Amino acid sequence: MDVYFPEKRRSYEQGFAGQKNLRIVSNIGPILALGALLSLTVPLGALTSTGQTAGHVQISDVLFALVLLLLAAKLGGELLERWRQPPVLGELIFGMLLGNLTLFGYSGLEAIKSHPGIAFAGEVGVILLLFEVGLESNLHELLDVGKSAALVATLGVVAPMLLGYGVSSLFLEESAWYVHLFVGATLTATSVGITARVLKDIGKMDTREARIILGAAVLDDVLGLIILAVVTALTASIASYGAAEISAIPILTIILKSVGFLAIAVILGRSLAGKVLALGSRFRVRGMPVVLTLCYCFVVAGLAELVGLAPIIGAFAAGLVLDETHYRGYRCMNSIKIGEILSPISSVLVPVFFVLIGLRVDLSSLFSFPTLKFSLFLCIAAVIGKQVCSLGVLEKGLNRFVVGAGMIPRGEVGLIFAGIGASTIVGGQAVFGPDIFSAVILMVMVTTLAAPPLLSTLFRINNPAQE
Amino acid sequence: MDVYFPEKRRSYEQGFAGQKNLRIVSNIGPILALGALLSLTVPLGALTSTGQTAGHVQISDVLFALVLLLLAAKLGGELLERWRQPPVLGELIFGMLLGNLTLFGYSGLEAIKSHPGIAFAGEVGVILLLFEVGLESNLHELLDVGKSAALVATLGVVAPMLLGYGVSSLFLEESAWYVHLFVGATLTATSVGITARVLKDIGKMDTREARIILGAAVLDDVLGLIILAVVTALTASIASYGAAEISAIPILTIILKSVGFLAIAVILGRSLAGKVLALGSRFRVRGMPVVLTLCYCFVVAGLAELVGLAPIIGAFAAGLVLDETHYRGYRCMNSIKIGEILSPISSVLVPVFFVLIGLRVDLSSLFSFPTLKFSLFLCIAAVIGKQVCSLGVLEKGLNRFVVGAGMIPRGEVGLIFAGIGASTIVGGQAVFGPDIFSAVILMVMVTTLAAPPLLSTLFRINNPAQE
Repeated sequence: MDVYFPEKRRSYEQGFAGQKNLRIVSNIGPILALGALLSLTVPLGALTSTGQTAGHVQISDVLFALVLLLLAAKLGGELLERWRQPPVLGELIFGMLLGNLTLFGYSGLEAIKSHPGIAFAGEVGVILLLFEVGLESNLHELLDVGKSAALVATLGVVAPMLLGYGVSSLFLEESAWYVHLFVGATLTATSVGITARVLKDIGKMDTREARIILGAAVLDDVLGLIILAVVTALTASIASYGAAEISAIPILTIILKSVGFLAIAVILGRSLAGKVLALGSRFRVRGMPVVLTLCYCFVVAGLAELVGLAPIIGAFAAGLVLDETHYRGYRCMNSIKIGEILSPISSVLVPVFFVLIGLRVDLSSLFSFPTLKFSLFLCIAAVIGKQVCSLGVLEKGLNRFVVGAGMIPRGEVGLIFAGIGASTIVGGQAVFGPDIFSAVILMVMVTTLAAPPLLSTLFRINNPAQE
Repeated sequence: MDVYFPEKRRSYEQGFAGQKNLRIVSNIGPILALGALLSLTVPLGALTSTGQTAGHVQISDVLFALVLLLLAAKLGGELLERWRQPPVLGELIFGMLLGNLTLFGYSGLEAIKSHPGIAFAGEVGVILLLFEVGLESNLHELLDVGKSAALVATLGVVAPMLLGYGVSSLFLEESAWYVHLFVGATLTATSVGITARVLKDIGKMDTREARIILGAAVLDDVLGLIILAVVTALTASIASYGAAEISAIPILTIILKSVGFLAIAVILGRSLAGKVLALGSRFRVRGMPVVLTLCYCFVVAGLAELVGLAPIIGAFAAGLVLDETHYRGYRCMNSIKIGEILSPISSVLVPVFFVLIGLRVDLSSLFSFPTLKFSLFLCIAAVIGKQVCSLGVLEKGLNRFVVGAGMIPRGEVGLIFAGIGASTIVGGQAVFGPDIFSAVILMVMVTTLAAPPLLSTLFRINNPAQE
């Protein structure tokens, strides 16, 4: 089951991160110092989009903006890591802080939010993230995972979808049905990475509950991506034709297209990727594994977009296909896992994506009581929705609450859905306006923060003898 | 002297590249196969800038364009590597082929040439390249390098500058003086990487000649960057005010600014970089060495641009400062060199830069006799100019021709200068129009191709006993 654990993403700091993982905040000095550094770079970031000097296009603005986002990501990630929380939340929170400096009268960073170069870096970041998630999901183990996991995953998608749709239509009376659909879709997400991390931290990775949770969470990724495809395609058809025919046929078409694309990408990919990589291993120029891996990921992601799906679906399919055996021909790869080849690139671009999501959260909209109330009910729907899925556990004698709790964190997957909701435009308006976006992000944060303590408490209550 | 050798850039394929290096083209199969793959992606690359689907910004166009450029770079690099030539020439040639498909009636790739996302990737690529050159240049060895190297470097800059200016003003009568200046500046470049690579390949790295060549080549980088700063600043002042005062004072100001910036960046950088990296080593989140190294490089590059210098000058200064001792705190860095941290990123972005340079070469302009004649005389000036510098060798009994030949290849440094010339606009016109740009690129290619066989022949003539 080790494949699910995103340890390989953390290859560089593996050694000391693992060792110090369980200490509580021991030394705040470096954080304060990097914080000071960050505050120094804020005015530099403000230079973004100041234009050109005579004759030559300026790129210092983009460079400074990238530095600012990267430092914010690492500082936020570090703080949350020290509080034994998922670092992605720190990236989000620091993005929110930077993005809401306007509340304190500082609007120098507004240009970063819509800078095309930065946005592209973030887009590639999320593509690489889904590629890595795909890499970590072993296809065979995925297919072999018990009926329980499949049932848990299905229930864990259907229940939150319905509840989310319900809460949304209750609170957002004047919004269109596709907004409710998008809210529901965001609620279906489950973050494999965060759950796996928590299970490993509390030493419960080899329990049957953990196996079911992780199997279901990986299946959830696939189901979630299909739902995303359906929802975005429906919204796109509204954007194009003014209204979508809500009949079963177009929805079925999209589902078939998604499943078909995933199937073709996986089947064709398995033989093709192997051949291309074997070919590359006979090359002598440097960087072939990195370049070919990246090209493969980009081509499948791009093809997914061409057939009308989200690029991340293609990236996931690309990652699902590759495994160590494809790299046998590369001597340099003997001691390196695939995830590590792209690790330097993804460790730079993935945080950019999450800080950008944070940047776009309008904190002032959270100060309104209706938004907070909406978000609270979303949280309740999110928790109940995933508790329902524990009914899918067929085995007897297992702790169903643990399974339900393990499915709660929305994590990065929820953020990706929310981000797509905010960047999808229908009739000149984003599907997720600032209020809905903020409420959804708050829900993602609450569920992600709540899961780790909840999970370890529930495990402890169930098996006090093991403690 | 090992520091000068760009072996670390080649870390990934080190093993088998080194081993097979001296075989002649043994197996053309994989190259043909990747060539077929490349031709398949050409239509995909043509999708660049096709716009948006309903509601969501398309990124597949940029992804496909990147894949196309990367495959072209690797294929070209591989071909030249097998012919024992510098891979960078292959990247250039394949870029030229792709960029000139219009000659065969195919114009699908024109959008890539001016795509802002791709251009940004290339710009970051060249910044990383100069950062790596800086990393490979050890500051102490640079300062300790003998008087000969300093003299050789100075002569190797002054003579080609004057000759280049002369040839340019002879052939391009209607061009302004700053065009001649830019041509001269491009002739001053020396490629440390290519010369070091050749010397290592023929096993002459530990000769006194080699030490002088490499010391002078590194000093040439610094002098060349200062000349670049002076030339671009002069041209920028023309672009802004219509004409530049050609008095000694502004030129002195720029030289002082360049030297001052380099000095401050190196002195401040030495203490600052160490502190920031030591700080980062106490962090637990993953990717700190990559992110901090990149941030440091970007900040110094951005600051260079802010004070009116080229960003690559800052990147070089940033690289000059960092060494292994700064990374002592990172356990994960015990077995890794600094160059390797960024290697996956640079091995993707650096080739993009060179393919883009190739893309912008208009082959049809090379079919004109005046351009070819101009280029031929540029080549002669380039060779003679660097032979002059061998007069700077103070030691007796050394082979001066070898030193002169070792300084001939312009390589990536010459391409960078040419690229800046083509992208600097004065009075609505590029300093290097298509004809001049093509002629200069041809000169860079000829000098780079000529140096390796020339160098090994001259070494053989001089010391036949050693063969």
